[in-house]
Amino acid sequence: MDHKNLVDIRLKLDSLDEQIVDLLKKRLDLVKSACDVKNSLGEGAYSHEREESILSHVESYAKTLSLPENYVKDLWRRILRESYKGVIGHFACTTDKNTKVVIVGGNGGMGQIFTRYFKSSDYDVISFEPSDWDRASEILKGAKIVIISVPIDVTLEVIKRLSPYLTEDMILCDLTSVKAPYVEAMCKYHKGPVLGLHPMFGPDVKSLVKQVIVSVPERFADKSAFLVEQFSLWGARLVKCDAKEHDEAMSIIQALRHFTTYAYGTFLSKENPSLKNILMLSSPIYRLELLMVGRLFAQNPRLYADIIMSSKKNFELIKAYAESIKPELEVIYKKDMETFIKRFIEARDYFGEYAQQFLKDSGALLAKFQDDKEGF
Amino acid sequence: MDHKNLVDIRLKLDSLDEQIVDLLKKRLDLVKSACDVKNSLGEGAYSHEREESILSHVESYAKTLSLPENYVKDLWRRILRESYKGVIGHFACTTDKNTKVVIVGGNGGMGQIFTRYFKSSDYDVISFEPSDWDRASEILKGAKIVIISVPIDVTLEVIKRLSPYLTEDMILCDLTSVKAPYVEAMCKYHKGPVLGLHPMFGPDVKSLVKQVIVSVPERFADKSAFLVEQFSLWGARLVKCDAKEHDEAMSIIQALRHFTTYAYGTFLSKENPSLKNILMLSSPIYRLELLMVGRLFAQNPRLYADIIMSSKKNFELIKAYAESIKPELEVIYKKDMETFIKRFIEARDYFGEYAQQFLKDSGALLAKFQDDKEGF
Repeated sequence: MDHKNLVDIRLKLDSLDEQIVDLLKKRLDLVKSACDVKNSLGEGAYSHEREESILSHVESYAKTLSLPENYVKDLWRRILRESYKGVIGHFACTTDKNTKVVIVGGNGGMGQIFTRYFKSSDYDVISFEPSDWDRASEILKGAKIVIISVPIDVTLEVIKRLSPYLTEDMILCDLTSVKAPYVEAMCKYHKGPVLGLHPMFGPDVKSLVKQVIVSVPERFADKSAFLVEQFSLWGARLVKCDAKEHDEAMSIIQALRHFTTYAYGTFLSKENPSLKNILMLSSPIYRLELLMVGRLFAQNPRLYADIIMSSKKNFELIKAYAESIKPELEVIYKKDMETFIKRFIEARDYFGEYAQQFLKDSGALLAKFQDDKEGF
Repeated sequence: MDHKNLVDIRLKLDSLDEQIVDLLKKRLDLVKSACDVKNSLGEGAYSHEREESILSHVESYAKTLSLPENYVKDLWRRILRESYKGVIGHFACTTDKNTKVVIVGGNGGMGQIFTRYFKSSDYDVISFEPSDWDRASEILKGAKIVIISVPIDVTLEVIKRLSPYLTEDMILCDLTSVKAPYVEAMCKYHKGPVLGLHPMFGPDVKSLVKQVIVSVPERFADKSAFLVEQFSLWGARLVKCDAKEHDEAMSIIQALRHFTTYAYGTFLSKENPSLKNILMLSSPIYRLELLMVGRLFAQNPRLYADIIMSSKKNFELIKAYAESIKPELEVIYKKDMETFIKRFIEARDYFGEYAQQFLKDSGALLAKFQDDKEGF
């Protein structure tokens, strides 16, 4: 065998690649047709059952050809994601068409996402900006849904100021990441249905498919049921939750974690090691961890300060965490292997079967992360 | 349009999917032929230039069909990864065939990987296990390469005990994650070539393609050059580094980061919030962060204790980190927005252009992470 054989095979591979791309194009076109039909039938764009059926079909077919299972599964998950992207065009409406929606802060990142989606389902959407208070009465007149999408530190004030313009037939929603105090305030300053919402994603998402929205239907849940259904139809995954339960989980999920990331990043910046060196010498896992730290600092500091400082409970939790580090430091200083292993095992027990699952999942994710890396 | 149209389209999609799977099968078969040719030519399995050429070819072809650029890029990176997997079969040898390699701890996780690769390039590989000291002289006789792949806390002892059996023509290597003390010890107890190595991956990797190996060619680098070349031929990315520089970076990359993850996990286990609730209410980014924490506890506590406690410098760094948290806690307590933002911006400046890059990269990675998630 010589080098000519290799050149021949490579030409065949290139031609094969073109054939695959051709079929992918055809596939995307077919998906668009399917979406048109679904829209005309008033069905949701995303169907979990259909996704499962597509995946199990390609997997079992791949098996007959002795192809690795995860190979086609990975590829089709990516193919399906592209399909969802294509479907943000038009969605069925779960209530009367041209229902009026006012989004307070509709020009912000999150406001824009909801504006786009409401419009795609034939709602009549109007943004209410800080300069609009003079025209508040006019803008809010006839609205069926009012969504407050403003920074958390002005949310309370906005609820109060909106109060005189709200009528009992309006559904009042907020999108803040803390629920109890705002849901309470909305109930105090509004007599109609109150639906607390917490979208668990940032303004950079391309589609709502599989994105989690926490809903706290605090008053007259039956009146806002169509709205929750509307979000589901857009592909979001709705999680109903009690406000207090939600806030307790968020102290850990958001406040504590963001704080530890912030503390790690600011410490690094003071130590000032060469980032270039560190990246060159990093394993994929540390590269990924550094990515998760660095990404925070590319974002709005106010947003993180607001989340971390949003409640006294957050501070108590963060303080308890800081105090828990002292005895661990002692363990390291004394090289107390026994205690280290004991605490390690306690944490392993806490994570339970998730620990193994997380190791497996992160392995798969790291492999994808490696794929993206330039080889040299 | 009615439901029958949808059924028709779905049948067409299923048939299209089968055609794509057929082509993927053909592609993998062609890759195997290419590998056979490469092996017979003594070429490395992985070629960065070829990877770039494949990617730019499908991307430009996809562009002519108005397909999104990242779509085909993501798919082909995954396709290429599968190709590399297929190629662990046989590799060219960068020195004389049947060169004798002794791997001390060859039955361990890392030892097994190197054993498999050395064998694939026609080396004569023998494992040296703790029970083999009686036969040490016999096992090491005629070895050209001796690799120490044992837990870090016994590495020093193993180097000393090996000393009388080592001859000047043997290349002595270690695989520990700390380099200076072990490279120094190897130079003290061995007169021949010394090559410190730090593989930046765990024993769970499927292939060495794109994996980083740090090399510290401490003595007679010209004698071990063929070995470094051998690793490159297997697809690994070699980074040459000074032992001290390496260790300084590792204090941050490994010791500090593992400690913070350990501290966060043990704190969570003491607070004991419901993991199920937390996962249900998590955004993709927190789910990913929790994954990175939980995965640590699925692994060997000794390994992490060894890394964290491997030097006094590590302790000093971790202590400095713990102390840096106090003033940050004060900031949160006082809700001192101004100082928070000031420190945030300092950290942003430290991350420099990487901050934006990390935000972009993590966005792409999170999208992949979402793909894998069951919708409901």
